[in-house]
This record gives sequence, C-alpha cells and structure tokens, in this order.
Amino acid sequence: MRLVSDIGELELIRRIAERLEAPPPGEVWAGDDTAVLRPAPEHELFTTDLMVEGVDFELSYCTGGDVGYKALAVNVSDVAAMGGVPRHALITMGLRAETTLAIVDGIVEGLAGAAKDYGVALVGGDVSQAGELSLGVAMTGAAQRPVLRRGARPGDALVVTGRLGGAAGGLAVLRRGARLATGHAAALVRRQLRPEPRLAAGGILASYGATAMIDLSDGLAVDLGHLCSSSGAGCVVETAAIPVDESLEAMAKDLDLDPLQTALTGGEDFELLAALPPDAVSRAEREVRAAGVALTEIGRVTEGGCYIGDKALDEIRREGWEHLRSR
Amino acid sequence: MRLVSDIGELELIRRIAERLEAPPPGEVWAGDDTAVLRPAPEHELFTTDLMVEGVDFELSYCTGGDVGYKALAVNVSDVAAMGGVPRHALITMGLRAETTLAIVDGIVEGLAGAAKDYGVALVGGDVSQAGELSLGVAMTGAAQRPVLRRGARPGDALVVTGRLGGAAGGLAVLRRGARLATGHAAALVRRQLRPEPRLAAGGILASYGATAMIDLSDGLAVDLGHLCSSSGAGCVVETAAIPVDESLEAMAKDLDLDPLQTALTGGEDFELLAALPPDAVSRAEREVRAAGVALTEIGRVTEGGCYIGDKALDEIRREGWEHLRSR
Repeated sequence: MRLVSDIGELELIRRIAERLEAPPPGEVWAGDDTAVLRPAPEHELFTTDLMVEGVDFELSYCTGGDVGYKALAVNVSDVAAMGGVPRHALITMGLRAETTLAIVDGIVEGLAGAAKDYGVALVGGDVSQAGELSLGVAMTGAAQRPVLRRGARPGDALVVTGRLGGAAGGLAVLRRGARLATGHAAALVRRQLRPEPRLAAGGILASYGATAMIDLSDGLAVDLGHLCSSSGAGCVVETAAIPVDESLEAMAKDLDLDPLQTALTGGEDFELLAALPPDAVSRAEREVRAAGVALTEIGRVTEGGCYIGDKALDEIRREGWEHLRSR
Repeated sequence: MRLVSDIGELELIRRIAERLEAPPPGEVWAGDDTAVLRPAPEHELFTTDLMVEGVDFELSYCTGGDVGYKALAVNVSDVAAMGGVPRHALITMGLRAETTLAIVDGIVEGLAGAAKDYGVALVGGDVSQAGELSLGVAMTGAAQRPVLRRGARPGDALVVTGRLGGAAGGLAVLRRGARLATGHAAALVRRQLRPEPRLAAGGILASYGATAMIDLSDGLAVDLGHLCSSSGAGCVVETAAIPVDESLEAMAKDLDLDPLQTALTGGEDFELLAALPPDAVSRAEREVRAAGVALTEIGRVTEGGCYIGDKALDEIRREGWEHLRSR
C-alpha cells in the first residue's frame, strides 16, 4: 500500500492535478501561483469550511470519497443559502505521512464528484504534511440578489426544505459501527456522509422574494436563532409542523434518540431555512417540490421572542451543537 | 490563562469577528453563510495556502502574531507573482482545545496586521477543533494582465528581487533557540517569520512586460525549474550574480551553512523571479529600487537545458525543499 511519504510533494500535487478538469479558454487553474478566473458577473460570494479528522469525520466509518464529497457539498450549501450558484473552489489538505495514497485519491474523487454534481470548478489548492488529516475548501459563487440572514420581517412565513434530524441519526448509526447498514439505517448514514445541498431550492426561494435564508448546519434551534437575531426579529414555530426525517422516526427507539429533539438540535442536515412573504409560500412550495425537495411552512416571524412550541429557543439551543465546548 | 475550550465555538467566532473591520457599503463580510463582495474588475486571482504547526512553524520559536502575519503574507506573495493586487481573504483555523486564547488573539492580530500592510480585506472564515494548530488562508485578487509562469522566451533576461537565503538562515537561527537574536541573526529571523511579499515590485515587473513570473517559496533552484519547464524553455544563471543575503554571508560560518547553496535551495524567501525583455531590465531595476527593493539580473532564458553555473538544475534541486519526502 503506497503512502503519502513514498512520494514527494510535487509528485503528490501532480497526482491530484491530473484528476482535475481542464480550464476554459482564458482561465488558468492549477499549476501557477494563483488561479486566473473570469470575475463573477454580479455579486461575488466567498466562503470556506474546514473538516478535521477525529472531529468532523472518522476514517473508521467513512471513506476518503465521503470526506471529499461532504467537504465540497457543505460549501455549496452555504452558497445555496445565499440564493447563489457556486463557481470555483480551492482545496487545502493536511496529510499525515502515513496516509495511504488510496485515501488521498478517494478524497480527490469525492471532491470532483460533488464538484460535478453541483457545477463547481476545482481550480487548485495546497497540501501540507500534518499530524492529522484535514480538508479545507474555499469557494466562490455568484448571486444576482444575495439573500442574507438579516432581512426577515414580522409576518413572514418560515419555511424549511426537506426533513430534519437524519444526519444526526446517521451519525448515531455510524457510531454503533453499522457502516454497511441497509434500509432506514442506510438512509440515515447517507444523510450524514453525503449531504445534498439545496442549490435549486435556494435559487427558487430567492426568486420568490425570500427575505432571509440560512442553511441548517448546526441544527434548526441554533440556525433559526441566527436568522432571528440577525434580523432583529422573533419567531413562533409549530412543533407539529416540523418535518422529522422518516427514517429517524422509524429507528428512533433502536438508536435511543428522541426524534423531535434530534430534528431540532441535530446538526448537518444542510437543509435551508427561509423567511418568505406569506402569499409566496404555496407557489414556492410547488416549484421546490418540482425540483424534488419538500418545502414545509413551520411558523412565522414575529416582533420578538423566539419559540418552538412552548419552549424558548435559548432553552432548546443549550442542547445543540457547539463543537468546541461539547468535547 | 483562558483556553479555547473555555468558550464555545460561537463565542470564539464572535471574538475573532470583533477584530475585523467593517465592510464597505454593498458588501457583507463575516456573519452570514458566505461573504458578499464586489466582483474583480478584470481577471480574478484565487489562491490558498495552509500552514501546520510542527511542519510550517513551531510555537516554541514564534508567536501567534508571527504565524498569522506569515500565513497572510505568503498568499499576497502568490498574488504579487501574478502582477496582481490582493482583494479579499478568508481564514480557516484548526485549534486545539488547550490552545490559549492569547495565541488565537495573536494569530488574528498578525493576520489583520498583514492585511493592513498589503491592502487585503479579511472577510470571514471557519474554525474547527483539531489535534494540532493549523491556519489556512484563501485569497482573491485582481490583475489586468496576469503574468503566468509559462510565457518566458529564449533571450529574456532573468531577474530576481531582493536577496536570497535569508529565510532559511533565519530558520537555522531559530532552531538553535536564538529567538531573541540581535544584529544579523535578528535580520535572518525576521526574513523567516515576517516575509515581505513583493507586491509593488510584482506590479512594476508586470508593467515592464514580464513574460513569466513566480515567487520563490521553495528555493531558486526549484522555482526556476517550474518557470522554465512551464515555459518549455531553458536557462543559464551566473552563480556570481546571485544576490546572497548579507546577513547569511556574515553568519554562514556560525550557522554551518554554505551561503550560495542556501541561497539556491533555501525556501521561503518570497522574492520574485521574472523573465523580462532585456531592454526593459535597467528601467525596471530603477523603478523597483525606487520602491525600496533590489532587482538583480541573474541570467538568461535559453532554448533548453537549465544551468546555474556549470551545474544542471536537476542536480541542485535534489537538495531542495520537498517537504513531504524530506521529513
């Protein structure tokens, strides 16, 4: 089994660069001091995410391909939450000398696969030796009218794409060692390892006048709080309206998880939460559904005070994901 | 002493974001899913670099401020090597739970200091818990006419900014535990810890019609090889013309370093190497000197075969920096 330490840095970079596509005329990607790109035609979006072995993923339960795919997809999700489209991505990899080339190749394939699925150009990056595996993605995008977190107005409807809690359920499955799960367990694992950023839905919600939008990376309770506090607004959310992942419901007992609590505080679903003018909800719902994704109205934006059912968001949030403190 | 683990991720991000400047009207920086920026007016440049504790720096011999400053400066150097100007930067930080907040604050101050020195806007980033400290910077820039590595033509003059080998000399000083050095040793340490990207010189060289340009991050022997092989050309470089760092010359004996060998194969000087039309050299030299930096003609681009003095580049290069294999 060949290791990273068996080949030099230049050879490693060549190996990675070989798997990237060729740039269009007028652009330069890997192989120079920087990439040279056509500028965004309108507003430029710029975002980055870092994934670290042992914190954000474990190679005991996922492949290099999973890690690469997710690292790229979560950045696309941030772009989707602005109502934008992704354009270019750069990669940083921290690699242990004893990392196998098979894992590196898998990561690159995962990155390239997600890039293809979401129309992103991988244009280069940097590798460094490291004591632990890490993968960073920096991504540019474009948006005609970026939808910020801060525009929600009292009276707006709160809508959420897809179903919630599945990714946290999948992590619970993986931690029980059930990588080769089937049925509901497999569906949950897929939610954890292969997030599907809601790129089409984000564009549709923006086109229907979304006043604020955010992707659900830290759980509804935390991210709804961000949207409301950024907007200087409150919210009331109907507990019964929250779309809980069906596979999570089916496996909740086996996994010893409360489905609603998991849907509220489980992270990494990468669904979108948006505030919409109420009269746009039904049309937006039809169009998002036509793109293959559910859209559910879960509540309203208010003047102040944030509630899910009869619980204040703060109270629920204290059980949410704050990576650094919880470990 | 307060540690990263004493505060949550959100509090940590707030703490960092507080130190960033406010965006101009129409832009959104930290605090949303992505930054929203005005697009580059012409060609957009996009680059990234990753620095890892124990590989690219040691906190035993440098401060958080040094690490932050250098991480930003080396990306500016890549932009300078395209003849461009930097615009926006995003940061990723992998932090150990037991990292002190003083180090994090130092890193952010170093980043902000370099950003100010080189006119870069820090627009956000991502932090993750990690087992080792790492710092990634992704940077955008703009260039009217990007100078690639691949345009050198036989007959062009090869010029280099500044003096070479100082950064490697500084590393040797630091490894001997002489952080609080004075005189020549201090000058060498400064070259290692506080690189000065040649932003003004890069713009001047581009304006004088540089046909190819690269920054010296891996040592002249390696980076000259990149420039020549990208251009499908060769070179002859006069050994006597290579501008060796004066402090390195003065301390070579103490440090047990061969000054010329160090100037050729020591990395991280972050000077610029360019191919220029021969008739532009003297005017470019005057203008670069007026910007406070030396410019030295070291040789010529040829049809093929790469030589420094009577040695083939390949031969010298085998003693150069290839991080992953050498450790």
